[in-house]
Amino acid sequence: MSRIKKIGVLTSGGDAPGMNAAIRAVVRTAIYNNLEVVGVKQGYEGLIHGDFMPMQSYDVSNIIQKGGTILCSARSQEFRSVEGRKKAHEQMLAAKIDALVVIGGDGTFSGARIFTQEYDIPVVGIPGTIDNDLYGTDYTIGYDTALNTVIDAVDKIRDTASAHNRLFFIEVMGRDAGFLALRSGIATGAEAILIPERQTHTKDLEKYLAKGYKGHKNSGIVIVAEGDKSGGAYTIAKEIEKKHPEYDIRVSILGHMQRGGAPSAFDRVTASTLGVAAVDALLDDQKSIMVGMVHGEVTHVPFNKTIKNKKKVKESLVSINDILSI
Amino acid sequence: MSRIKKIGVLTSGGDAPGMNAAIRAVVRTAIYNNLEVVGVKQGYEGLIHGDFMPMQSYDVSNIIQKGGTILCSARSQEFRSVEGRKKAHEQMLAAKIDALVVIGGDGTFSGARIFTQEYDIPVVGIPGTIDNDLYGTDYTIGYDTALNTVIDAVDKIRDTASAHNRLFFIEVMGRDAGFLALRSGIATGAEAILIPERQTHTKDLEKYLAKGYKGHKNSGIVIVAEGDKSGGAYTIAKEIEKKHPEYDIRVSILGHMQRGGAPSAFDRVTASTLGVAAVDALLDDQKSIMVGMVHGEVTHVPFNKTIKNKKKVKESLVSINDILSI
Amino acid sequence: MSRIKKIGVLTSGGDAPGMNAAIRAVVRTAIYNNLEVVGVKQGYEGLIHGDFMPMQSYDVSNIIQKGGTILCSARSQEFRSVEGRKKAHEQMLAAKIDALVVIGGDGTFSGARIFTQEYDIPVVGIPGTIDNDLYGTDYTIGYDTALNTVIDAVDKIRDTASAHNRLFFIEVMGRDAGFLALRSGIATGAEAILIPERQTHTKDLEKYLAKGYKGHKNSGIVIVAEGDKSGGAYTIAKEIEKKHPEYDIRVSILGHMQRGGAPSAFDRVTASTLGVAAVDALLDDQKSIMVGMVHGEVTHVPFNKTIKNKKKVKESLVSINDILSI
Amino acid sequence: MSRIKKIGVLTSGGDAPGMNAAIRAVVRTAIYNNLEVVGVKQGYEGLIHGDFMPMQSYDVSNIIQKGGTILCSARSQEFRSVEGRKKAHEQMLAAKIDALVVIGGDGTFSGARIFTQEYDIPVVGIPGTIDNDLYGTDYTIGYDTALNTVIDAVDKIRDTASAHNRLFFIEVMGRDAGFLALRSGIATGAEAILIPERQTHTKDLEKYLAKGYKGHKNSGIVIVAEGDKSGGAYTIAKEIEKKHPEYDIRVSILGHMQRGGAPSAFDRVTASTLGVAAVDALLDDQKSIMVGMVHGEVTHVPFNKTIKNKKKVKESLVSINDILSI
Repeated sequence: MSRIKKIGVLTSGGDAPGMNAAIRAVVRTAIYNNLEVVGVKQGYEGLIHGDFMPMQSYDVSNIIQKGGTILCSARSQEFRSVEGRKKAHEQMLAAKIDALVVIGGDGTFSGARIFTQEYDIPVVGIPGTIDNDLYGTDYTIGYDTALNTVIDAVDKIRDTASAHNRLFFIEVMGRDAGFLALRSGIATGAEAILIPERQTHTKDLEKYLAKGYKGHKNSGIVIVAEGDKSGGAYTIAKEIEKKHPEYDIRVSILGHMQRGGAPSAFDRVTASTLGVAAVDALLDDQKSIMVGMVHGEVTHVPFNKTIKNKKKVKESLVSINDILSI
Repeated sequence: MSRIKKIGVLTSGGDAPGMNAAIRAVVRTAIYNNLEVVGVKQGYEGLIHGDFMPMQSYDVSNIIQKGGTILCSARSQEFRSVEGRKKAHEQMLAAKIDALVVIGGDGTFSGARIFTQEYDIPVVGIPGTIDNDLYGTDYTIGYDTALNTVIDAVDKIRDTASAHNRLFFIEVMGRDAGFLALRSGIATGAEAILIPERQTHTKDLEKYLAKGYKGHKNSGIVIVAEGDKSGGAYTIAKEIEKKHPEYDIRVSILGHMQRGGAPSAFDRVTASTLGVAAVDALLDDQKSIMVGMVHGEVTHVPFNKTIKNKKKVKESLVSINDILSI
Repeated sequence: MSRIKKIGVLTSGGDAPGMNAAIRAVVRTAIYNNLEVVGVKQGYEGLIHGDFMPMQSYDVSNIIQKGGTILCSARSQEFRSVEGRKKAHEQMLAAKIDALVVIGGDGTFSGARIFTQEYDIPVVGIPGTIDNDLYGTDYTIGYDTALNTVIDAVDKIRDTASAHNRLFFIEVMGRDAGFLALRSGIATGAEAILIPERQTHTKDLEKYLAKGYKGHKNSGIVIVAEGDKSGGAYTIAKEIEKKHPEYDIRVSILGHMQRGGAPSAFDRVTASTLGVAAVDALLDDQKSIMVGMVHGEVTHVPFNKTIKNKKKVKESLVSINDILSI
Repeated sequence: MSRIKKIGVLTSGGDAPGMNAAIRAVVRTAIYNNLEVVGVKQGYEGLIHGDFMPMQSYDVSNIIQKGGTILCSARSQEFRSVEGRKKAHEQMLAAKIDALVVIGGDGTFSGARIFTQEYDIPVVGIPGTIDNDLYGTDYTIGYDTALNTVIDAVDKIRDTASAHNRLFFIEVMGRDAGFLALRSGIATGAEAILIPERQTHTKDLEKYLAKGYKGHKNSGIVIVAEGDKSGGAYTIAKEIEKKHPEYDIRVSILGHMQRGGAPSAFDRVTASTLGVAAVDALLDDQKSIMVGMVHGEVTHVPFNKTIKNKKKVKESLVSINDILSI
């Protein structure tokens, strides 16, 4: 049997819809297993400053459907230092917190890994980021919601693009990965999708435009990943504008709304599943791992692996769009 | 190389969001492969009566985001008869349609299987139903959208349930399966979920209510699958009302809105992937199979198998809700 | 200058989206004017039992966008009695609450009127109900949101109705008035709208169906007000089914989801405006009135008037639908 | 009785949600009155080039809920010239179009006014623009939908702003008017609203920030009208960043999604009402007027007046936000 009596839960890094659903699952699974549970405010910042709140089942009532994170999030400079992590450890000792569940991305897990190496504290991570760029899990919490937010916005833009026969360059988030761009591009029937993982796309785009989609389509949508090598939607739009003055071009940067909103059904179920799995993993004496979903089943991935490896976009989806945008 | 020159595509049975995205993918993949493609109106009815429309790439422009099906759907009595299918075959011969892609559920595939046995015509099926009750695919087109429609409605009901401290019995679709109920129940933080796959739930529900959730919660949501053995939301609500007069009980039947609406990102991507896969399968000389998604990859499942086997709900999800509804 | 130092605010009767926005406006306007303000939980029930919570500006942060009511609502039997109101008055004296803002409908204002007659306590009402059935205001808080919820559901049903060429009878809320039915009917392009204010509509509907809309339309939507003389959607559907077996008929009762959800922009602005106006009215020594919106301006209507008079539906809208459903 | 036998309908300028609902109303009201009706594609461009399509009742089936405009829109340089308008007139003569309904804004009506002066053709305008900046009508078609699109986006941004305690500058459309900014600001509980109609707001904003909302709020939203004197969201954000390094500032430009999407209930009813009114006005031998809604009733406003006068934002709403953002 596990010696863990009290766990802490925190959200760190960029927030993502579904984090609250994950918090709820962690809190209730802990209580179900007779553990105490405290919420840590503002990620590692709160760990350092002892910003803890004991949580009961009803503290997470009616939050499964809410965007953002009730624990707030932050990026902590201090936790990157030996001193910062020392303080955090002292705060945990003082509050008798035996283990941690950290919800976030890559940076969150890097911090957790060092911390767990230095102090031998069991930490389990839950992947929460709209970017879906974590190795070892098919989906991260927030990705599906962000996809739906993007397609809802692009559908609206398609309305006005069609009314005016315009070509839109729409920039979506995703840091240096194209997951959000690729799937939202397919889902909106984008005429082209520019992602960092693909080299030749600017040429492809020009070829495509040169063939003149205007002959048979009444609008054009190009989805541009923010991390794309072309330099983003404004830059590529300007280039194309020069070469193709025949197009009436507009740019839209979807921005931070992609991070908010009520989580989708998919994200809520994933967050609930992973929240349960994270506490189960701690009770099974696991540590320094991320719980993820692969092929619909929970997996345990060492932080080490998820940090060092790069998840790849699905090549087959790239080809699908080439076919469907004709 | 395949001898197929011209394919027909139809939607049959209950419609589901994402069917248009699948039609679009079939049409464009066919054209991409230099095939002719005709749309068949109203499912097998249109096949019998030769209600065909030749389709070009632009005929499926701007439909990826639309609910319903531009080809319309129907349940055909006539196609269940030898004569009906004979007529259908003659119409196909007359129109030189070599192969079919049929989008629908279980009933659609049963019809296709007999037809293909009788006339040796290549038919490939795409799973399209909000019920998700098809063996051989993790997801059917429309399921994710319906889930999101359900949780959006239940979130709204939760608002008013909380304002009045009420217990709601909400009936969702799904025919004789509990897929829609189970996941939407988890995603809305339902206090209980009643699905046909589980026997003991009425007792569980009573035990749960006897413990008195009113002590620590300010509303209650019970999701009831329409196929549940209890007889549906009204029946079970009446029973509970008798035994627990302390609850202020209301019933809501979500109804047909679950079948409509703009498809979710997930459904659009699945529909696009399967539409491409269906035409590819025909070109690979496959027939009498359904294309599905298992573990994120396209699979080919003989109609025989998908019809005869029953897909099971995920037991782990059932346990998750027991933990999270505390 | 007013002698009021401390006001109470409560929500009563059926809840409506935008009530939280009104609470926020009342609380902040009170604080802006150096008044104390307490929230009364569960309407008049909380008044009777002294269920009060002092409120600060931040207590109403981030609630403008939330459905339901953070103060909860209830229908109080006890407040209908002399004794109940006596207790309520004593609780107010004990808590030094000088005046009340009550948010609700007709029943809420009736209670307030008697109470204010008995104890000379200034009470100002804010119209909050999705039914829009209050005399003296063009719009009640929640009506616009409910309209949008209804049309969103009906649009979804239209998708599936069109796919199957079906005739749907859709029942919407509104108690004994047709406001919600009439506008949502026009907004969804309903083929017919059945409201209690109109006598001849069943005949009209039959005439309409006899002409055979099936000749030129691929679906039919009939919006039925819950208070309609025909007896509701199920009853009228059965009648029509008997006389017109050629139609494939379905029924949908939209139910309680109409009461929830994030309020629309219109409702938030109206709620904010009226919340400010209610406190202003108290400071101007007004009492026993409802603040309303007429022609875009705030009005003050004696409870007496709003209770005794019946608001009429706009006849011109009825004619518009006759023209547009051809 | 009117001599009008055949009318044309077009949409011009920036498109707005609800234009399709207006087109539908115009077409069906014309048919109801035994007029012929043709749709003119791409605004005045189509008039010049004779791009006409005869329209029947079913051509406008199932479009009431669609964003964009099925007739497409454009800004026509050629129509600004005498020659352009001459061609347009000739095309109308050739097609025997007696009268026009034009749906659009200010620029659309200016063109219509000159055209009707030159050729004595009856033209009635319907106000369609998300900017709501037309004198003589309380609401323009599209404004309410755009408001709801904006608040939906800002609610999402609020989620992430709250999670990180950030200050967001969000730029909304509206050309040189603050209607969209003002109401969406109130509806989202914005901490400040910057509109062109108000001079002192940058100072106000600084005063507000200097007081330190961070003491008692966990996020800040500033809505900036695109036409604001401060130079837009990026400019003002940079200024504030310099003076208040204590704030974690982000900018979001909502962009063209504000122009699309399914129209709201309010916009659909307004569009339906004005579409009927426009045809009625032509039948009453009116010309060179815009039909509008004032105090919930249809009004007729000479083009002259609506072009020359500037609609004012409601001062009372400005004060409301000062109170409610405390």
